[in-house]
Amino acid sequence: MEPIRLGMVGGGQGALIGSVHRLAARMDGHFRLVAGALSSTPERARKSGAEIGLDPSRTYDDWKRMAGREARRKDGVEAVAIVTPNHMHAAPAIEFLKRGIHVICDKPLTATMAEAKKLAAAAEKADALFILTHNYTGYPLVRQARAMIARGDIGQIRLVQVEYAQDWLTHEVHNKQAEWRSDPARAGIGGALGDIGTHAYNLAAFVAGMEPEALAADVTAFVAGRKLDDNANVLMRYPGGAKGMLWASQVAPGNENSLRIRVFGDQGGLEWAQEEPNKLWFSRFGEPKQLLTRNGAGALPEAQRVCRVPGGHPEGYLEAFANIYAEAAQAIRARQAGLPVPDGVTYPTLSDGLAGMRFVAACVTSARRNAGWVTL
Amino acid sequence: MEPIRLGMVGGGQGALIGSVHRLAARMDGHFRLVAGALSSTPERARKSGAEIGLDPSRTYDDWKRMAGREARRKDGVEAVAIVTPNHMHAAPAIEFLKRGIHVICDKPLTATMAEAKKLAAAAEKADALFILTHNYTGYPLVRQARAMIARGDIGQIRLVQVEYAQDWLTHEVHNKQAEWRSDPARAGIGGALGDIGTHAYNLAAFVAGMEPEALAADVTAFVAGRKLDDNANVLMRYPGGAKGMLWASQVAPGNENSLRIRVFGDQGGLEWAQEEPNKLWFSRFGEPKQLLTRNGAGALPEAQRVCRVPGGHPEGYLEAFANIYAEAAQAIRARQAGLPVPDGVTYPTLSDGLAGMRFVAACVTSARRNAGWVTL
Amino acid sequence: MEPIRLGMVGGGQGALIGSVHRLAARMDGHFRLVAGALSSTPERARKSGAEIGLDPSRTYDDWKRMAGREARRKDGVEAVAIVTPNHMHAAPAIEFLKRGIHVICDKPLTATMAEAKKLAAAAEKADALFILTHNYTGYPLVRQARAMIARGDIGQIRLVQVEYAQDWLTHEVHNKQAEWRSDPARAGIGGALGDIGTHAYNLAAFVAGMEPEALAADVTAFVAGRKLDDNANVLMRYPGGAKGMLWASQVAPGNENSLRIRVFGDQGGLEWAQEEPNKLWFSRFGEPKQLLTRNGAGALPEAQRVCRVPGGHPEGYLEAFANIYAEAAQAIRARQAGLPVPDGVTYPTLSDGLAGMRFVAACVTSARRNAGWVTL
Amino acid sequence: MEPIRLGMVGGGQGALIGSVHRLAARMDGHFRLVAGALSSTPERARKSGAEIGLDPSRTYDDWKRMAGREARRKDGVEAVAIVTPNHMHAAPAIEFLKRGIHVICDKPLTATMAEAKKLAAAAEKADALFILTHNYTGYPLVRQARAMIARGDIGQIRLVQVEYAQDWLTHEVHNKQAEWRSDPARAGIGGALGDIGTHAYNLAAFVAGMEPEALAADVTAFVAGRKLDDNANVLMRYPGGAKGMLWASQVAPGNENSLRIRVFGDQGGLEWAQEEPNKLWFSRFGEPKQLLTRNGAGALPEAQRVCRVPGGHPEGYLEAFANIYAEAAQAIRARQAGLPVPDGVTYPTLSDGLAGMRFVAACVTSARRNAGWVTL
Repeated sequence: MEPIRLGMVGGGQGALIGSVHRLAARMDGHFRLVAGALSSTPERARKSGAEIGLDPSRTYDDWKRMAGREARRKDGVEAVAIVTPNHMHAAPAIEFLKRGIHVICDKPLTATMAEAKKLAAAAEKADALFILTHNYTGYPLVRQARAMIARGDIGQIRLVQVEYAQDWLTHEVHNKQAEWRSDPARAGIGGALGDIGTHAYNLAAFVAGMEPEALAADVTAFVAGRKLDDNANVLMRYPGGAKGMLWASQVAPGNENSLRIRVFGDQGGLEWAQEEPNKLWFSRFGEPKQLLTRNGAGALPEAQRVCRVPGGHPEGYLEAFANIYAEAAQAIRARQAGLPVPDGVTYPTLSDGLAGMRFVAACVTSARRNAGWVTL
Repeated sequence: MEPIRLGMVGGGQGALIGSVHRLAARMDGHFRLVAGALSSTPERARKSGAEIGLDPSRTYDDWKRMAGREARRKDGVEAVAIVTPNHMHAAPAIEFLKRGIHVICDKPLTATMAEAKKLAAAAEKADALFILTHNYTGYPLVRQARAMIARGDIGQIRLVQVEYAQDWLTHEVHNKQAEWRSDPARAGIGGALGDIGTHAYNLAAFVAGMEPEALAADVTAFVAGRKLDDNANVLMRYPGGAKGMLWASQVAPGNENSLRIRVFGDQGGLEWAQEEPNKLWFSRFGEPKQLLTRNGAGALPEAQRVCRVPGGHPEGYLEAFANIYAEAAQAIRARQAGLPVPDGVTYPTLSDGLAGMRFVAACVTSARRNAGWVTL
Repeated sequence: MEPIRLGMVGGGQGALIGSVHRLAARMDGHFRLVAGALSSTPERARKSGAEIGLDPSRTYDDWKRMAGREARRKDGVEAVAIVTPNHMHAAPAIEFLKRGIHVICDKPLTATMAEAKKLAAAAEKADALFILTHNYTGYPLVRQARAMIARGDIGQIRLVQVEYAQDWLTHEVHNKQAEWRSDPARAGIGGALGDIGTHAYNLAAFVAGMEPEALAADVTAFVAGRKLDDNANVLMRYPGGAKGMLWASQVAPGNENSLRIRVFGDQGGLEWAQEEPNKLWFSRFGEPKQLLTRNGAGALPEAQRVCRVPGGHPEGYLEAFANIYAEAAQAIRARQAGLPVPDGVTYPTLSDGLAGMRFVAACVTSARRNAGWVTL
Repeated sequence: MEPIRLGMVGGGQGALIGSVHRLAARMDGHFRLVAGALSSTPERARKSGAEIGLDPSRTYDDWKRMAGREARRKDGVEAVAIVTPNHMHAAPAIEFLKRGIHVICDKPLTATMAEAKKLAAAAEKADALFILTHNYTGYPLVRQARAMIARGDIGQIRLVQVEYAQDWLTHEVHNKQAEWRSDPARAGIGGALGDIGTHAYNLAAFVAGMEPEALAADVTAFVAGRKLDDNANVLMRYPGGAKGMLWASQVAPGNENSLRIRVFGDQGGLEWAQEEPNKLWFSRFGEPKQLLTRNGAGALPEAQRVCRVPGGHPEGYLEAFANIYAEAAQAIRARQAGLPVPDGVTYPTLSDGLAGMRFVAACVTSARRNAGWVTL
């Protein structure tokens, strides 16, 4: 099968996540990057394109023009990856969707709820798919946890404990990554909330198979002068009575990228940590704890289908990210063939993106009300 | 030095914590158990006393009579351990304190705030010490963490994350231990809150060297028919702006006795877990994580003084518990000699007990107000 | 029941293992230390005795006189703990055994094989028990592992991998502990081999339920001027075809007291590490790994009978050591009552001590033959 | 830069390592697979090629013909990956080298020493590079360990402990992977020795920066009827007096792919395990243990240059494998440009392959001599 022709918006020199998207798109051979508007600065766009081997004639400094031109080419991009800061997600996404070009977009969905709604409306009308890279749902053992919970392995859920702790913003930081993330104009109303809180929220929803109906959030910017939050302590309540806690922090020294989820039901518990992604702890109440390994004994089909190598051969962040791209490829190819998305193919959608936006908004609202409860 | 003559109230057949206290009292040879009112049922009191080798003439079925008689004996008890259910702490404690007999009392302080206040008043007037067995503060590496924070190793505290998760009450349980703990008449207004939440709260205060000024608590009884909480999700705010989360649960399958604390400051972080008590993780921001071991490289005097064996020779729960008794012994001997409590001797006091009672009361009040904020 | 009257030979000021024995003897109340020849230097014997509260009239500076006098007292010691350097085990042990006083002796058995044989002969004739404190066999999960293997949980054993690594002798050390251990006159022919190699060997034999029939040992003294080995790399062959490796080192930086055993059979595997003694990994071939906890789900009676507190409440080195004393107490009391040692009571004996001596001798012989095979 | 045109020999349907090589080659965009002799069965060759999207005209069923034709094409392969069973390494490698086509070859080097020598001779004469995929040397923290040792962080090496344990051959297995590996005609004289022992040996040499001068190996085939070893217990001696142990096993239940190395010097120790590849333990003697993370604090340039994402974002087996390909690409491009291999570019060579062959041969010889010492 020919690789899907991919374009990219953002991800020029100095960007981090752009190169992750490119590697993820390339890993399984499902995509080929053929065009890009990697920067809005012409010089940087050109240099960035050259660096990664793009055809100069398909290296743009304006994503609008790229959308127009590529849509007209017979060999134009079939899908586009949008890897710009949050405030630059909605406009290009709408532009490409309008032209029937599938969109693979970094999270959070947008900077503002208004943009999110416009994007949602555009996506609804478009003849193209929208895939959101909540990449942590691509880990095989996250799929395993979700499947085990769905089939009742831990009984009825009572407790969801999720946390995402980093330390890179412990002090004031001046670099490209830090700056736009703490600038309300580019990041939106959430700092850590938007950057990593949405990941934690999404992961919890994905694994538990449900979303809270209300939350109360104590939100803080610990570093003097920081305009957006760098820490959020959140309580959650689920329909049916389950409870949860979510902690998102970028000021917790000793934590590199410590996303961790624990779910407890009336029959058992599960625990997974992103920094040791090839292990899943499973406890059936009253029995010894089991250590499930990626693609090892006890692996369910939902997990095995996103594994590349046998147990004991660690897969990591990039493979999980690539799994989202692999799922996207399968969905896109089905759509191109006029078929429904194949059974089992699983990826985060606009609806997940909207949920994330509601999560951030609810936290900020709650924070303004002295961490009072806000309905989601 | 002669061992201190110890009596015990509670701790008869079928009790768990009574035997822990006895072992802790005996471990370092500081105490000798010579009298007991181990049960209020005469037959059980007699049998329980015989089982542990008490002189029948000093085996009582009434702690009041025990207090009276022992106080009159020349070789009467110098200290008494109170290891009854919560509602039976205050009365005997007051009785012994009144007679100048030192009291070592299990936690939480009492079942009700009213009792707690009466006990506090009695202790104030008494010529005897009151020691509360918040035993987890006896772990050497808990002492190490406290000392490191006190001397500024992690800078100014921003975040306190503490949790105490167990699973033994996941289902309805009918045994002596479970029953009194979920009976408001004996346990008080807190279930998991009183039983383990107070430990978590006390540990956080001990390590961080500060207490929150307000909290918001989402409190639940998950098991049908259970009269007291079995789970509490709590947000905390500290004077000066630090924030915290506390989770106490007895319905989290896969957790035996998982008390864990993490404290993050603007210069570093510390992490300790009770089930691996001989390890303390220390991160100075921007440097590799260090694994400090009990009595190993980097051990501070505050930790070394409560170690019995070199690093690599694990000490555990009983040693930590015995450390509280060892501290009590030093304090009692100093008092008997008319001296102040020696420098460095550290044990939980009535003031810690009152703080625990306030914590439980605040949680329950908060829960009634839809988890609104309550000042401590 | 009255505690057994215990004496002690060795363990004066500056000694480490003496205080461990005393604590272990006291922990469960089975023994009361009433006499001691803690040092052969009169002044130090006196001071050491005073420090630990011994009656001055039963504080000796000569174990021979102690044996004689105590044997004649009606309330004389019933058992004696011998905690001297290796070369001072045999003579006092024989002296006390001869008088019908039970002996609890530190390992290795003796400094020389000749002494070991004399001691064995004396023990054979004596009306008293000989207990060797290979204390690591006292850990509940070591008992669990042994019981699981004995009942076939891992099938037929193929591989035994055992190691005991420390780092305290990485450089030249001048202290009491280090000096006698590296002095052939006091330690015997083995350095690390005798001090910790015998523990590793004994643990492997205890858990696997079998001893090798031959070994090949590459033995080294890495530190210049050291007269005895500080590292031994050993291959082992078992009757029936199983194979093993044993590594004992006191020059492995980063290892405090890292004794670890893994046994693999044709149906499963087990793994235990002394520094995390409350965990036992169990793998049934083809199934997820299980983490068994001390006194937790899956605990066998052989392990439960040596537990004091529930799972999640860590027990450690001292509890394991005290378990040997508790077993000794049960054996001694049975013997005093004219009964056989009760079912289940398990402790290392002279035969284990002799096996340890043969192990050291075989290693040293092998080393002399260029690490050739030596039959055990 | 244009990707290097790659061909592949072996790796057809049902193969495992072939797809790993393809993914590794593709991950960073350095190679493009354009031709293949994926199987010697024409039908399978054709189907396998079609499956992975090869041009049918460049899908061969005979690697000899492939070598000839591709060498004549202007756009012929510049490099070839050889991923056949061991006995099919030498002949195709020689064929391609002869034509100036660079060879990337799976390990072990060959099935027999005779083949190895012929290959070495051919490589010497060829105007093309030979890269051996001892992929575990591609892990960033393995590079870190090597660099730390090279600059003296642990002082002078005394001990090397390396092990590679798997369990997939615990019972008799009938599948393609198992069968050729236990068939002397295809695997050579080593079973576990060749398959994973060579990896362990190579890793130890890479990290320690030195090779043993002699070894003694106790080699076993535990499963009845197995013609090649499934377990090897090996002692090693290094020039200068360092000692080592190597354990390779495919019959150790509970081990998926447990390659682990520990190196101890007179100033410190290092420990790394392949199943947790983003962690490296470092102990400076007398200081607390440090946990170094991939691309985290303390990362050296030698490690950073082979990292793709920041610390906390786990990289794994495929990234490490791809690092070998990335190094190969840099070396090939330099060669094509007439330049020396750039500084820092590091990959296993023929000389490593020969060392592995000598290791296997020495083990087998030693085994025949009752595990006597054999000079390497």
